[in-house]
Amino acid sequence: MVFLELIEKKKGGAALSAEEIRWLVDAYVAGEIADFQMAAWLMAVRWQGLSDEETTALTGAMTVSGITFDFADISGPKVDKHSTGGVGDKVSLILAPLAAACGCVVPMVSGRGLGHTGGTLDKLEAIPGFRTDLTAAAFRAQLTDIGVAMGAQTEDLVPADRRLYELRSLTATVDETGLITASILSKKIAEGTEVLVLDVKTGSGAFMQRLEDAHRLADRLHSVATLSGLRCSVLITDMEQPLGMAVGNALEVAESIDVLARRDPGFAGSADLETLTIELTAEMLTLSGLAPDTRAARDTVVAALDDGSALRRFTAMVERQGGDPRIVDDTGLLPQAAQSLDLAAGADGYVAHLDARLIGEAGIALGAGRTRRDTPLDPGAGLRLHVKRGQPIARDATWATLYHGPGADLERAVTKLEAAFSLVPDKPEEVHLIKERRP
Amino acid sequence: MVFLELIEKKKGGAALSAEEIRWLVDAYVAGEIADFQMAAWLMAVRWQGLSDEETTALTGAMTVSGITFDFADISGPKVDKHSTGGVGDKVSLILAPLAAACGCVVPMVSGRGLGHTGGTLDKLEAIPGFRTDLTAAAFRAQLTDIGVAMGAQTEDLVPADRRLYELRSLTATVDETGLITASILSKKIAEGTEVLVLDVKTGSGAFMQRLEDAHRLADRLHSVATLSGLRCSVLITDMEQPLGMAVGNALEVAESIDVLARRDPGFAGSADLETLTIELTAEMLTLSGLAPDTRAARDTVVAALDDGSALRRFTAMVERQGGDPRIVDDTGLLPQAAQSLDLAAGADGYVAHLDARLIGEAGIALGAGRTRRDTPLDPGAGLRLHVKRGQPIARDATWATLYHGPGADLERAVTKLEAAFSLVPDKPEEVHLIKERRP
Repeated sequence: MVFLELIEKKKGGAALSAEEIRWLVDAYVAGEIADFQMAAWLMAVRWQGLSDEETTALTGAMTVSGITFDFADISGPKVDKHSTGGVGDKVSLILAPLAAACGCVVPMVSGRGLGHTGGTLDKLEAIPGFRTDLTAAAFRAQLTDIGVAMGAQTEDLVPADRRLYELRSLTATVDETGLITASILSKKIAEGTEVLVLDVKTGSGAFMQRLEDAHRLADRLHSVATLSGLRCSVLITDMEQPLGMAVGNALEVAESIDVLARRDPGFAGSADLETLTIELTAEMLTLSGLAPDTRAARDTVVAALDDGSALRRFTAMVERQGGDPRIVDDTGLLPQAAQSLDLAAGADGYVAHLDARLIGEAGIALGAGRTRRDTPLDPGAGLRLHVKRGQPIARDATWATLYHGPGADLERAVTKLEAAFSLVPDKPEEVHLIKERRP
Repeated sequence: MVFLELIEKKKGGAALSAEEIRWLVDAYVAGEIADFQMAAWLMAVRWQGLSDEETTALTGAMTVSGITFDFADISGPKVDKHSTGGVGDKVSLILAPLAAACGCVVPMVSGRGLGHTGGTLDKLEAIPGFRTDLTAAAFRAQLTDIGVAMGAQTEDLVPADRRLYELRSLTATVDETGLITASILSKKIAEGTEVLVLDVKTGSGAFMQRLEDAHRLADRLHSVATLSGLRCSVLITDMEQPLGMAVGNALEVAESIDVLARRDPGFAGSADLETLTIELTAEMLTLSGLAPDTRAARDTVVAALDDGSALRRFTAMVERQGGDPRIVDDTGLLPQAAQSLDLAAGADGYVAHLDARLIGEAGIALGAGRTRRDTPLDPGAGLRLHVKRGQPIARDATWATLYHGPGADLERAVTKLEAAFSLVPDKPEEVHLIKERRP
C-alpha cells in the first residue's frame, strides 16, 4: 500500500477500508510512515472526518499495536470509566473502589493533567508513597485480590496512541471526534475492559465547550464502543463549574475520602460529586448485569458507601500500591500547602457563575496544575470552594480558600478567580448536572 | 511566534498576516519548523485555501529565501513564460530565442518532466553537449551577449520552494491554487523577471483537467503576479490533445527547430504549436512596451521567424551552452531511437480524440518520460503524430509512429495509444486552442 494514496483518499472525502486503516497504523508504529506524512493524513482527517466504521477500524488497529490484557480468569465483570476531563473531577478515586466493592473488577489506567484539567495519576500520587507504575503482574495480582488497581499507561500498552497523540498535539489535530474516540476506546479495550461508562463533559471547563460538540462525541463514542464489542453508557454532564468543592491534588484526595467515608466535607457542597459518582457506578452495575435496573443499582452503590465497604476497598488499594493508609482516617497527613488565603464574596447575592476553566487556570497559577508535561506540581496546592453555583452568600463570607507554596503566582490566581466568580441578586435557574444519556 | 498557533489559525479558516507568513517561511528554511508541522499546515491550507494577499506574502517570502538575480544593468525588458505543463509542449524552446530576437531579455529557469508531462530541461539535454547547469556569472554573461539563457534551478535559488515542493509532493498538498501560484511566481521573480506570460493548460493532459480549476488558477496567478509588481498575461489553452506533432525529447527539439526554421515539419500539423508560440511571444512584446498593440507584436514576432533571426538566436544559445550547433541544419544528428513502429488508423474517419494524458503515458512506456525523479530517459524515444484532432484519415494510413529502444515497454505503449485514439464518421466541431485570456 502507498500511504500517499491514503492521504489523497481521505483528502478527497472518501472512507478508508478497515484493511487500509490497519495497514497504516501498523506501518506507522513500525516506523515505515514518516511523521510528516502522518501529520498530513491527520489534518485531512480533521478536515473530512472519520465514519463510525473507520473509527472502529482505527480503534481496533490501535488496540493491538502493543500488549493487551485479558482478565477473563478473574471472576466478575471488567469495568472502567473515562471522563473527557474537567476541573475538580475526582470521580475515579471514589468510583473505582466503590465499583469493586459492588462486585466489579476495575483495571483502571489513567493519565496526568495538562492545562486547566486535572489527571487521576497526579491526584493518586499526592498520597504519600502511592505508586502508579505497577508491573503487569502486580496489576493482575491486585485485581485478583481486591478487584481494583489504578495505574499509569505503560510504554507497551497501545503505543500507536502514544505516538499519534504526541503528533496530534503538535499539529493541531487533537480536536477530531473520530481520533478522540479511537484514542479513548483503544486504551480501555487493551486494558481488558468489557463494560465502559463514559462521562463527556460540556461547559467552560470541558474540552467540548459546546453541547453540540459533546453530543457528537457522545454519539460517536457510544456507536464505536458498541461496534467494538463493549457494553457502554455515555453521560453528558456539566463542567461549567468545578465538580465538588476541591481543586488541587491532595485537596481532591481528601474530598474523595470524605465522600467515601460519608463524612460532612465541611462545606456541604460535594453533592454533585457524590451524585455523579453514584450515577456512573450504577450504570456500570446495570450494564454488567450485577443489578436488574438502575434503581436497584443505585441502592447497591449507596449501600456500599453506607456500610464502609467502598472506603475499605480504597484503603486496601492505597496500602497495596505503597501508599500510607493512615490518610484515610486523617487527611491532615496528606501534603499541606504552606499558606492559605481566603477570598470574600464582596457583596450579598447568589452565585451566578463559578467558571470552571478560569478556576482550573487559577489552580495552575497556584502550583496544582501544569501547562507543560515536565513541570513539577505542588501536591498540596489548590483551592476549596465554600459555595456552588445557585447558593446564597453574604458580603463578608469566604467563597474560596486558596492553598499555595512560596513558588505560586498568587496575583495571577486571584485575578483568574475574581474573573471566575460572579453574583446575581436573585436565585438563578438550576443547571442540570446530568444533561443527557446514551443510549 | 508559535507555529502550532498558525496551524490552528489556518485550520479555523482565518487568514494569516504577511508577517506571520514571512516568519513561517524563514523559520522553515532555517530548520526551526519540523516537517511534520509544516505538513499539517500545508494540508490545512489545502483545506481552507489562501487569499490573494496571503499568496502574495508567501510568494514574496519564498522569493527572498535564497539568492535573487537583478539584471537591471542589461538593457531590454526581462521576460519569461511559464506553462503549467502538458504533453508535447515545447513552446519554451522556440519562444525563448524568438523573444530575444525581438529585443527581450529571457532569463529562463526550467524544470524536468515527471509523470506524463515533459520538462524543458530534458528536451534541451537531448541536444548533444548542451549544458543546463550554468553558473550565475555564465548565465548573466550569456544574457548580456545574446539575450537568452536557459538553465536549471540552482540550489540557492528559492530554496523555500524546493523544500516545500518536496514536502507537498509527499503529502498530497500539491494541488492548491495559492501554493501553486507562489511556487511558480517566486522562481520567476527571483530570476529577475519583470514581464511574465503564463500558459495555464486545461484538458486531459493538463494538471488542471477541468476548465473551472484552470480559471481559478489563472485568476489567482494574474492577481498575485500583479500584486507582486509583475506585468502579466495569462492564457488558458487546450491540452486535450498534445501540442504539435512530436512527443519525446529529441523529437521535440527537432520539431522546435522545424518551426523556428519555418520548415515543413513533414506532417503539416505543428500549426497549433506555432500559433500558441506566436501568441505568447506577442503578449510579451505588448506587455513589455516593445510593441504598441497585439497586432503589431504578432507582425514583429512573425518577422523574426521569417528573417531567420529567431533561429540564429537559437543556434547561438545552443553553441554558447556547449551544444552541437550542427543539429540546427541536420536534426538527424540528434539522438535517434533504434526502432520504430507505425500504428494504422484501422478505419476511415475523422480523428475525434487524441487523449493527451494517455499519449504522455505511452511516452513514459517508450522511455521518453519518467515516473520517478531518478529514472534515466531515452532521449531518442517518443512518438510522432501524423494527424491532429478533427483531421480526416484513411483506414490504412499511419496515425502515429513510435520510436523506442530495446528497454521500452512497447505493449504498454501501444495499449495506451490505442485507448488514446478514436475516430468519428463526421468532421467533429473545432476545439479552440486558446480558450481565454487574463486580463
